[in-house]
Amino acid sequence: MNSTGAEICEELPHAETRDILLPNQVDYASQIAVDIGGTLAKVVYFSREPNLSKGGRLNFTKFETEKIDECIDFIKTLLAARRPGNQEIQEKVVIKATGGGSYKFYDIFVEKLGDVKIEKEDEMDCLITGLNFLIAEIPYEVFTCSDSDPMHFEDTPSSNMFPYMLVNIGSGVSVLKVTSHDKYERISGTSLGGGTLWGLLTLLTGATSFDEMLETSKYGDNTNVDMLVGDIYGSDYGKIGLKSSTIASSMGKVFKKNIRQEVGKFRNEDISKSLLYMISNNVGQIAYLNAQVHGLKKIYFGGCFIRGHLTTMNTLSYAIHFWSKGTMKALFLRHEGYLGSVGAFLKHNETRQRTYSFSEISSFTQPIITEESIKSF
Amino acid sequence: MNSTGAEICEELPHAETRDILLPNQVDYASQIAVDIGGTLAKVVYFSREPNLSKGGRLNFTKFETEKIDECIDFIKTLLAARRPGNQEIQEKVVIKATGGGSYKFYDIFVEKLGDVKIEKEDEMDCLITGLNFLIAEIPYEVFTCSDSDPMHFEDTPSSNMFPYMLVNIGSGVSVLKVTSHDKYERISGTSLGGGTLWGLLTLLTGATSFDEMLETSKYGDNTNVDMLVGDIYGSDYGKIGLKSSTIASSMGKVFKKNIRQEVGKFRNEDISKSLLYMISNNVGQIAYLNAQVHGLKKIYFGGCFIRGHLTTMNTLSYAIHFWSKGTMKALFLRHEGYLGSVGAFLKHNETRQRTYSFSEISSFTQPIITEESIKSF
Repeated sequence: MNSTGAEICEELPHAETRDILLPNQVDYASQIAVDIGGTLAKVVYFSREPNLSKGGRLNFTKFETEKIDECIDFIKTLLAARRPGNQEIQEKVVIKATGGGSYKFYDIFVEKLGDVKIEKEDEMDCLITGLNFLIAEIPYEVFTCSDSDPMHFEDTPSSNMFPYMLVNIGSGVSVLKVTSHDKYERISGTSLGGGTLWGLLTLLTGATSFDEMLETSKYGDNTNVDMLVGDIYGSDYGKIGLKSSTIASSMGKVFKKNIRQEVGKFRNEDISKSLLYMISNNVGQIAYLNAQVHGLKKIYFGGCFIRGHLTTMNTLSYAIHFWSKGTMKALFLRHEGYLGSVGAFLKHNETRQRTYSFSEISSFTQPIITEESIKSF
Repeated sequence: MNSTGAEICEELPHAETRDILLPNQVDYASQIAVDIGGTLAKVVYFSREPNLSKGGRLNFTKFETEKIDECIDFIKTLLAARRPGNQEIQEKVVIKATGGGSYKFYDIFVEKLGDVKIEKEDEMDCLITGLNFLIAEIPYEVFTCSDSDPMHFEDTPSSNMFPYMLVNIGSGVSVLKVTSHDKYERISGTSLGGGTLWGLLTLLTGATSFDEMLETSKYGDNTNVDMLVGDIYGSDYGKIGLKSSTIASSMGKVFKKNIRQEVGKFRNEDISKSLLYMISNNVGQIAYLNAQVHGLKKIYFGGCFIRGHLTTMNTLSYAIHFWSKGTMKALFLRHEGYLGSVGAFLKHNETRQRTYSFSEISSFTQPIITEESIKSF
């Protein structure tokens, strides 16, 4: 893959995740990558531009792991589109598969895709390979998030890229310490991840999709279900610096209201916001504590849990800022859910020359980001 | 309070929490202590034995904070029982109140108890005062918990009592670092505590009491709702040491089963066990990480969340053992819910002489603990 001059496509997106333009990659790619997690299967593939002089682009799409057949059918379609006697395609196509599902569903892939070669790649390896590529080679990929500035882009790093921490939030959460391009360690994790939030909200609110749950949470007031310091003290607990508005116990008002026979009065919106805060705050805290133990200052948050959702990113940012007293930084990515599949895609040419051509890419114009457009980056 | 010769009453308990016998305390105590948390108000008071030569005992009882009137009525009964012209009672009775509710309900206490003096004490101060007393002066109070040995008593410490960490799990969780009898710091906390578990289970299972929830969880199989590493990989993820049986995502199977329209098939028992594991594991992990940051090896778990429940203690113990690779120790207390109220009780005589009479108390026989009797310690 020639990533010289790579940039994120800022036109109105045709997909949930914006394409990455690769103007200098004119050859077909012989690989299609898929990262099959506990809940979602993420696919990355390359397509050439109609006008060949414009190179091609990386495309991103995902499927529910429960419906893995849909994912396989999609890959079949991609394969079929390339096959009809096209003489340019010399190399045989390879499916680069990673994530737990690359083991679990290997036999099904083999059976359904016929003579296509399937190569499994280690999940953590792929996460780091993908993340390093996005950080170093894609401008306007990495950003910080705050109330006042929801998408503040970071400069692409030149020499001080490492060490950093990756907190990958999928169904569960993995925490990795990364000290160089190929040196990393899984230092921690937690089972309280996206799967927990989606699972609890499925049961509690009857919502059936991630987007519905996130949308519902927007209109919620968590203080109707969360017990605040003020609910216990009637005021701040000043001596130890706990504000009246601090959440003392997530969902802590429910049992009390139950005693008063007020159950049934809880709004789905309030429950959704409370649990979104709960999971995000907790991941943020575990991230902070691990960063403290390992002396890391930069924390990248990846994984499909985030989905470019402002409240989620703000909560993670706030947690890191709060606990670290501003000494650590929460960093986000516009392709946060595709670290593993981008990594698997790149693994096909491990020997490819890295092109950290910062001078070439720094001349791109910064995209104009509004709060509205964040949802569809 | 003369705690020389103090011991836990091992007779069949008349209350949920066993009394502490104080054979050398023959005078009436002039104080009654109450620790009013977000969910529960815990009361400690002294009563003399019918046979005065046997001294007296500390009694422990609790009320739901939502029903604070019941708590006040109980204190009134205690006061009334002491008043009828008893010439021995010289000192005026004092209510030592701590916890957030001592601020929030102060006016109600004043109004309802009339001319009784009410003194507020800081919550964290009381926790530590109470814990230090229990650790140092009450034999067979502190124990470790494992599958094979659910109640293994610790020796009362002589000189190496500090430093330690206290993780107090009430509605929310406070984490304190304690370096001497009167030196401590609240270093962390989490909003995922008892209130979260009780609140979620109230909504999800319709259970109405803590005991019902804990009882239900006993018969559950969390793997019906939790997503395990094996569910994602089909096997272990050996490279990074994750076993197939490790929980990858708490409640992570629910959303998937929802896609397969299998919602409604989730058993209350399974959900209860999953969430009990989720909260306990998470508290254990946050405790471990904080202990690591602060170089602490001994971790005491207190608070009404634990309730002497074997699965809860085993999960906390397992989490500490797992994360610390056996280098840290989870310690439990038979009066775990009353640290704050014991502390408030003792605050009345801050100048009392501490009596670390280890030689005197070490001659007591170790109580015989069976799995059955743990519930009622």
